[in-house]
Amino acid sequence: MVEGDWYLEDEPNGYLQGLRIKQRLASKTTGIQALQVIDTDCFGRALILDEALQITEYDEFMYHEMLVHVPLMTHPEPRHVLIVGGGDGGTLRRVLEYRKAEPVQVEIDTTVIDACREYLPSIAAGAFDDPRARVVIDDGIDFVRQCAERFDIVIVDSTDPIGSAVGLFQEGFYRDVANCLEDDGMLAAQSSSPLFMATELREQVDHLRAVFPLVRTYLGLVPGYPGTLWSYTIGSKRYDPLEVAPGTIARRLAEDGIHPRYYGPQLHAAAFVLPRFIADILGP
Amino acid sequence: MVEGDWYLEDEPNGYLQGLRIKQRLASKTTGIQALQVIDTDCFGRALILDEALQITEYDEFMYHEMLVHVPLMTHPEPRHVLIVGGGDGGTLRRVLEYRKAEPVQVEIDTTVIDACREYLPSIAAGAFDDPRARVVIDDGIDFVRQCAERFDIVIVDSTDPIGSAVGLFQEGFYRDVANCLEDDGMLAAQSSSPLFMATELREQVDHLRAVFPLVRTYLGLVPGYPGTLWSYTIGSKRYDPLEVAPGTIARRLAEDGIHPRYYGPQLHAAAFVLPRFIADILGP
Repeated sequence: MVEGDWYLEDEPNGYLQGLRIKQRLASKTTGIQALQVIDTDCFGRALILDEALQITEYDEFMYHEMLVHVPLMTHPEPRHVLIVGGGDGGTLRRVLEYRKAEPVQVEIDTTVIDACREYLPSIAAGAFDDPRARVVIDDGIDFVRQCAERFDIVIVDSTDPIGSAVGLFQEGFYRDVANCLEDDGMLAAQSSSPLFMATELREQVDHLRAVFPLVRTYLGLVPGYPGTLWSYTIGSKRYDPLEVAPGTIARRLAEDGIHPRYYGPQLHAAAFVLPRFIADILGP
Repeated sequence: MVEGDWYLEDEPNGYLQGLRIKQRLASKTTGIQALQVIDTDCFGRALILDEALQITEYDEFMYHEMLVHVPLMTHPEPRHVLIVGGGDGGTLRRVLEYRKAEPVQVEIDTTVIDACREYLPSIAAGAFDDPRARVVIDDGIDFVRQCAERFDIVIVDSTDPIGSAVGLFQEGFYRDVANCLEDDGMLAAQSSSPLFMATELREQVDHLRAVFPLVRTYLGLVPGYPGTLWSYTIGSKRYDPLEVAPGTIARRLAEDGIHPRYYGPQLHAAAFVLPRFIADILGP
């Protein structure tokens, strides 16, 4: 919520995070959700959907690099990549850094794309104008259910499991995704805060385990999100993210001219090493 | 600061973190600093010194395990361990988990120890009553300058580099520590938030580099601290924390019956893998 000069988000357990507002840039109701763009002192401009901060100019590279590079480096030849959500364009931009990738993005709310192109252009950095990118305005759940295409990777870049995005965290959706994936395909999704949404994380992982033979959760930092710590989970039909050698990652980054500011050859595997209290959330 | 039902800490760049207060338990001026103990909804009881949260019941294991186990596992036979600061007793408790350790603790402010024993007894968990523990009430800077003993490890468990603790972050102090260390000894210190105190982190690392041949920074999570992400730095005369095998750590944990909830054999090395934007803070 906006209160005076502050954008505040409080968790049900009484934890509060606030960003001091420099300027309010946009506020509209899209028919699907309430959208705001504010400029903050600490993290630059920020996109807020339904009272939850989605991304800031400062931390977008941390979130998007971890959501994209970990699965794309786990797959030896990612070409057909489906992005569900991700209206700010930061995920699309990182997928396009892989020269052979042909991404399709399904975003439910065209207003999000338009607002991000207007107020947060540094996140997509022109990705929406790339001739390799195909953008469809549709409900990701419907798109995946009816889709006849087959993908190497499906990336779920959604809001948290509340409101309109709940369906993107359920077993039925994951089954539909699995049906759209090649026999060696994988899904990667943001999977909430292990500190403040441990129950939701565990439920999501359990749903993925019901569908995919290999499920692995990894961690990253997104300072704009409450508590900074964030998790991502991969459900994979064949490839194991822990079996990718640092040398292979270094070579592929160099070949495609990718220069991450967060991700790297050593960080790939290190992100899967969970503190024990977080491993305990996920169970055996 | 306490404002209504909230304990709030704001960074100069306009980032705010707040914990909802259930109860105010203690508030006193010790002559050295202002001390408060509050009970919070999200993290249990919390110790606050000079308007900065030091530790909570919820996250104390995350901070203390990373401050203690990383250096103590890097040293093959840690016996003489000096703790500078650490009045809550959580560091002392983890050092005492090593059966052969003989810790000496130098705390400047006896009121901190007394308040923690009264209001936060679960942190020290009886460590101050252990016959192996020797506690000295003194200024750590003076103690180290005049000390004739030699230690395997010196752990600096201090407040941030503002106010009375500034001297614990300077090159002169680190030279005095080096003089108190055996020829294969090492120092480990908390080294601030890479997100909000990057300049202070870099200065501290530079001071350590002026004194120790090997300096390595690693990361951990402390949700009670602003932004959750926290750093620690080791300055070592001989042993490299990256050369400790996971199997050795697992064996030593088992031998001493230590059951960490954050630290572990794989996490030891993973904590040193820095996202590139953090490695860039530290320079080459």
